[in-house]
Amino acid sequence: MLKIYYTKDSGWGAPRIMPLQDLRLHPAAKVLHYSVELFEGMKAFRGVDDEIRLFRPNMNMARMNRTAARSALPTFNGEELVALLKKLVSVDQEWVPHTESSSLYIRPTMIGTEPTLGVVRPAEALLFVILSPVGPYFASGFKPVSLLADPRYVRAWPGGVGMMKMGSNYGPTLEIQRQAEQQGCQQVLWLFGPEHRITEVGAMNIMVFLVNDQGEKELVTPPLDGLILPGVTRDSLLTLARSWGEFRVTERDITMGEVEQASEEGRLIEMFGAGTAAVVTPVGEIHYQGRVIRVTKEGQKESLAQRFYNTITGIQYGKVKSDWAVSIDS
Amino acid sequence: MLKIYYTKDSGWGAPRIMPLQDLRLHPAAKVLHYSVELFEGMKAFRGVDDEIRLFRPNMNMARMNRTAARSALPTFNGEELVALLKKLVSVDQEWVPHTESSSLYIRPTMIGTEPTLGVVRPAEALLFVILSPVGPYFASGFKPVSLLADPRYVRAWPGGVGMMKMGSNYGPTLEIQRQAEQQGCQQVLWLFGPEHRITEVGAMNIMVFLVNDQGEKELVTPPLDGLILPGVTRDSLLTLARSWGEFRVTERDITMGEVEQASEEGRLIEMFGAGTAAVVTPVGEIHYQGRVIRVTKEGQKESLAQRFYNTITGIQYGKVKSDWAVSIDS
Repeated sequence: MLKIYYTKDSGWGAPRIMPLQDLRLHPAAKVLHYSVELFEGMKAFRGVDDEIRLFRPNMNMARMNRTAARSALPTFNGEELVALLKKLVSVDQEWVPHTESSSLYIRPTMIGTEPTLGVVRPAEALLFVILSPVGPYFASGFKPVSLLADPRYVRAWPGGVGMMKMGSNYGPTLEIQRQAEQQGCQQVLWLFGPEHRITEVGAMNIMVFLVNDQGEKELVTPPLDGLILPGVTRDSLLTLARSWGEFRVTERDITMGEVEQASEEGRLIEMFGAGTAAVVTPVGEIHYQGRVIRVTKEGQKESLAQRFYNTITGIQYGKVKSDWAVSIDS
Repeated sequence: MLKIYYTKDSGWGAPRIMPLQDLRLHPAAKVLHYSVELFEGMKAFRGVDDEIRLFRPNMNMARMNRTAARSALPTFNGEELVALLKKLVSVDQEWVPHTESSSLYIRPTMIGTEPTLGVVRPAEALLFVILSPVGPYFASGFKPVSLLADPRYVRAWPGGVGMMKMGSNYGPTLEIQRQAEQQGCQQVLWLFGPEHRITEVGAMNIMVFLVNDQGEKELVTPPLDGLILPGVTRDSLLTLARSWGEFRVTERDITMGEVEQASEEGRLIEMFGAGTAAVVTPVGEIHYQGRVIRVTKEGQKESLAQRFYNTITGIQYGKVKSDWAVSIDS
């Protein structure tokens, strides 16, 4: 693991790579009471050429610094942290799986460690990074998941922190995730507002591929209006789709009403989550106000989700050359 | 400190009172990533008769259990935890200050300790309680505080967790608190909605005492609509005021517009925060959209805030007999 301590008076200390070990925290550490904490999710991939690569790490660093500023935690030099991540992965390189189905998950984390109960910016913090090999995210593989869309629960709000990767955005979701599982669903589809705009799915961005009411094929994802996490995968898929130029690509509000109508009229082609863990996660059906909306059929070949998956993993595993893939030896 | 471990398979373990010590947490403990954490704030008071008392502890236990259920953390037997708190304070009784200006702060805390990164309910948790003697909460004493009311930042929303004492409600507020201090204010007044309803002040409930537009004296506090923490002090002051029967007591929405108009027309008598830390905290002025709204004048005698303070502390320090004060020897 990598550890870097911060104090208000001395700034960031020397980074240290050391064996994974328990953290010792004073019971009054602010992270344990006031959620003074943030994280990122990244991966290292062993390519077909045995080279180990990160995927667009600077985007994670930029988001981590924005989140730090909003979380009353210290900001840092993102390029230096990428250099440290490369070194850490290099030290642990035998933990990067020798297969294209798996990767090494990288979890940069920052916590406020000052041991005082005042509800104010901490004077002490710890940035640490842990690693773990991971297989495909969903146990069911590329099988479409079912979502619970319950408008009684709201993940984020204008004037809130929905666009930040703060721990605070996740704690309140665990109980709703449990309710989804109790109802036979795998994930929560988060809605917003009286018109039930769709915002995110579980901890992923959501994308809808449909034939719109002008008869055009359109890939829709909600805009970065402060309610949505600016996902690295989201940005990558939008960039790819725009470069292909084969269908409309729009960041705009989309409601459950529009999704349901498109489904009823046979115009809903696909829906999928987009995130680092799974790249894309096809949505099979949505449980919404007592109804079940059918979305992606199982075993669909030549799907957009599959094409995105193949393109992104092609870059990640060194089969397609791209600036997005960054060797840990670079 | 008091520690009680929980596992999904074995339930709650045996409680242990032990010297204060650092906690050892795996770096993947869910509390450090997903804010799986909650707390309560209570106090022990040394009465004029040298008896040590808690204040309405069962209300804290009920709220802590409601918060635990919403936080995907285990619930517990509140009466048993009160018995343990009494024992803990008894062991540390010489830390309960021998003065009516101070008390022993009690911080029950619960954290999800399971060392895995899945965004799901933790299978392991720790309930711990730490203690600290505290003086009057605000360095300026009973001097009115100035508030920053900035509608760009929203603390809680319908469908969210504003009524829960989860860490997640506090992390996002630290940066806004810092901005308030930079602008010369001591606390944040949280607004909600296009009409700028007032909701809470810092980590306290807010109360407004005014002459309403029917010419009646009225004590107003926002209703428990899910945006507001159900404070023990809030409930106590409402109960006292209703028992006095000297003025209207209402739980209703109140907007910045109504507060500003009452101030301009000389009908705004007092505003104050209500919470465990300070009992009441008079508001001197509110900085709102470039204007300064004057509220409570300094050195006001016979104020409602002072009367509430004297009544509540009279109960807490054993000068007034009340069921609300619970001896640790009972």
